[in-house]
Amino acid sequence: MKINEQFEKLVPNYLFADVAGKTKAFMETHPQQEVIRLGIGDVTLPLAPVVVDAMQQGCEDLRFQKTFKGYPEYEGYDFLRESIADYYKSFGVKIEPEEVFISDGAKSDCGNIGDIFSKENTVLIPDPVYPVYVDANIMAGRKIVYAPSGQQENFLAMPDPKVKADIIYLCSPNNPTGAAYNAAQLKEWVDYALENDAIILYDAAYEAFIREDLPRSIYSIEGARNCAIELCSLSKTAGFTGVRCGYTVVPFELVRGGKRLHDLWYRRQATKFNGVSWAVQCAANAVFTPEGQRQCRLNLDYYHENARMIARTLDDLDIYYTGGKNSPYIWMKCPNGMSSWQFFDYLLENAAVVGTPGEGFGSCGNGFFRLTSFNSHEKTAEAVERIRRLLS
Amino acid sequence: MKINEQFEKLVPNYLFADVAGKTKAFMETHPQQEVIRLGIGDVTLPLAPVVVDAMQQGCEDLRFQKTFKGYPEYEGYDFLRESIADYYKSFGVKIEPEEVFISDGAKSDCGNIGDIFSKENTVLIPDPVYPVYVDANIMAGRKIVYAPSGQQENFLAMPDPKVKADIIYLCSPNNPTGAAYNAAQLKEWVDYALENDAIILYDAAYEAFIREDLPRSIYSIEGARNCAIELCSLSKTAGFTGVRCGYTVVPFELVRGGKRLHDLWYRRQATKFNGVSWAVQCAANAVFTPEGQRQCRLNLDYYHENARMIARTLDDLDIYYTGGKNSPYIWMKCPNGMSSWQFFDYLLENAAVVGTPGEGFGSCGNGFFRLTSFNSHEKTAEAVERIRRLLS
Repeated sequence: MKINEQFEKLVPNYLFADVAGKTKAFMETHPQQEVIRLGIGDVTLPLAPVVVDAMQQGCEDLRFQKTFKGYPEYEGYDFLRESIADYYKSFGVKIEPEEVFISDGAKSDCGNIGDIFSKENTVLIPDPVYPVYVDANIMAGRKIVYAPSGQQENFLAMPDPKVKADIIYLCSPNNPTGAAYNAAQLKEWVDYALENDAIILYDAAYEAFIREDLPRSIYSIEGARNCAIELCSLSKTAGFTGVRCGYTVVPFELVRGGKRLHDLWYRRQATKFNGVSWAVQCAANAVFTPEGQRQCRLNLDYYHENARMIARTLDDLDIYYTGGKNSPYIWMKCPNGMSSWQFFDYLLENAAVVGTPGEGFGSCGNGFFRLTSFNSHEKTAEAVERIRRLLS
Repeated sequence: MKINEQFEKLVPNYLFADVAGKTKAFMETHPQQEVIRLGIGDVTLPLAPVVVDAMQQGCEDLRFQKTFKGYPEYEGYDFLRESIADYYKSFGVKIEPEEVFISDGAKSDCGNIGDIFSKENTVLIPDPVYPVYVDANIMAGRKIVYAPSGQQENFLAMPDPKVKADIIYLCSPNNPTGAAYNAAQLKEWVDYALENDAIILYDAAYEAFIREDLPRSIYSIEGARNCAIELCSLSKTAGFTGVRCGYTVVPFELVRGGKRLHDLWYRRQATKFNGVSWAVQCAANAVFTPEGQRQCRLNLDYYHENARMIARTLDDLDIYYTGGKNSPYIWMKCPNGMSSWQFFDYLLENAAVVGTPGEGFGSCGNGFFRLTSFNSHEKTAEAVERIRRLLS
């Protein structure tokens, strides 16, 4: 029996373990100091009450034979697919409910979608970005090329006509940089994909954080239905990181090699997936009701306010950053030419504030640092005050 | 962009669509007749009350910041992994909690586990069997060989020393035949795997139906920890088809190509999966409490009684069958040399009873027919009475 030798090419990512280790060591040697974590990558506010109510009612349905639910549809219940199509309509994008596939999360779909593509494709991945795009494609044995980005591009990687690629991952608003593409920039990517017969895998996990006039979906761009699959999640939108529900949109027009990608993805999911928990789909559906949207918005506003506190501080200190306006992430330049890890140590030792070194998200991330808005108002305010004192 | 051309080699499986279509047509032309479905492949009894209570409490936890849960561990919460290790202990099998990976179901794991193996392996699959083993490996581009079984082997395929294979799927008690291996037979498979440096993927989804003195886990066989991964599910054990929770056991001893398969599977799951819903893991944990086991057993007993009714009828009619004793499935020989579909039509038209043609599970299934015990006592009793009258 031969193992998949591609696993040997995976680079162990010790980023979060190293962050935790250094933080723990500091806390042991400085027991009197309160460490504040602005590196949290997970939501912290509880679920919207209507969402909990709906999930509990979903559980209750399973208590009685009359309302019991067995195997769900592989692609999700129609009522939820319709709610998601209506949600898209609310920001002016038309998709069909039947184009939506419900899943246990965008991370699963990001990796599993690769099953429908040949190994012979070249994958283009922005740098810096969410590391699972890279690892999933290393496992699959695909050639990976990078679209670098830096301060000059405001960390929004743009297509290079000299680079040929077949599959393109985009994440907007981006994790970790918080930068979000405008319509003109996305149009460049769509045009590039159409010219190269490529497919864009568009990760819109942070779309609900968009507050400025920027695309919430790649399907707001003309031509995208012929070249893009969109992956989304309720993890950040509605605090579903522990509930697990996402969705992937595969337009009917997407045809390659004479096959509808919609049919291929359906077949993949029907073979290697068995649908999402009834109670979870009930909870997800509640997110898209008017009251669900109102309650979820309160949480998003809370995180936004934290992001604004951090951004204002960096503005005052005249430190370059991206994100914060349309994203829970702020991606700041390390001051005084420090490397990511140098600044990590400096901030921990002198302000007892923990963030995430940018190089964990790709080589273009060195010299940058990610702060997040998932802590409380009180802790965030205290942390930015310490940062202000330290860097003034 | 090239699609995965392996998808073109997948044979469309119209089995259940054809069954549904023929049933619908019959009902339209015979509106006065009550059709009884003994083809149901899904549980029908509601969840155990303690399980619903635990799931609702899990939801309640998400309502408050203090008890809120974000991203779960990729491999599942420790409390649930420990409960599963204790469950194994209850039937005399020792596994470590850390060897257990919680997932959204055995079907996902059955397919996704392929990510850790090279494409260059030959896969051995019994015939007849659950069709997703075949389809998942066609998608991955692996060579598939079959281990045929028939009446002579009581539908328990055994290893053929002349056939070389690297990965072996076994399902016991088997879906669709209901046949279950005894310890001596499983030992032959373990010995074969060890001799061939092969890995057995042991699907134990129906283990909770075992009532005779037969292995509940492949790890009750000496040597299995060096050659077997076990996949299991709460779908049938506890009626979780709509809740979605399964688990996969990867022993620490399993090493191939210098790598622990446990490490490879962890890395796969960490990259392409994000764990199981908090409320679902709470529900799953309740299954393994003494009261949960008692309540789940009532449902299993109910299905067993239906299986016994069907088996008694076939005994009286002197019709050959497997299953029914340690399984919700009964696999009967079609009478009078009929093919599977001939008998399907005959039974529908003359008794208004619906079952599943055996050839949908592999070519060795032709001439056989699957009946299931998931309908009610009343409907099952009425169906077997009709079968008795028709075939006497």
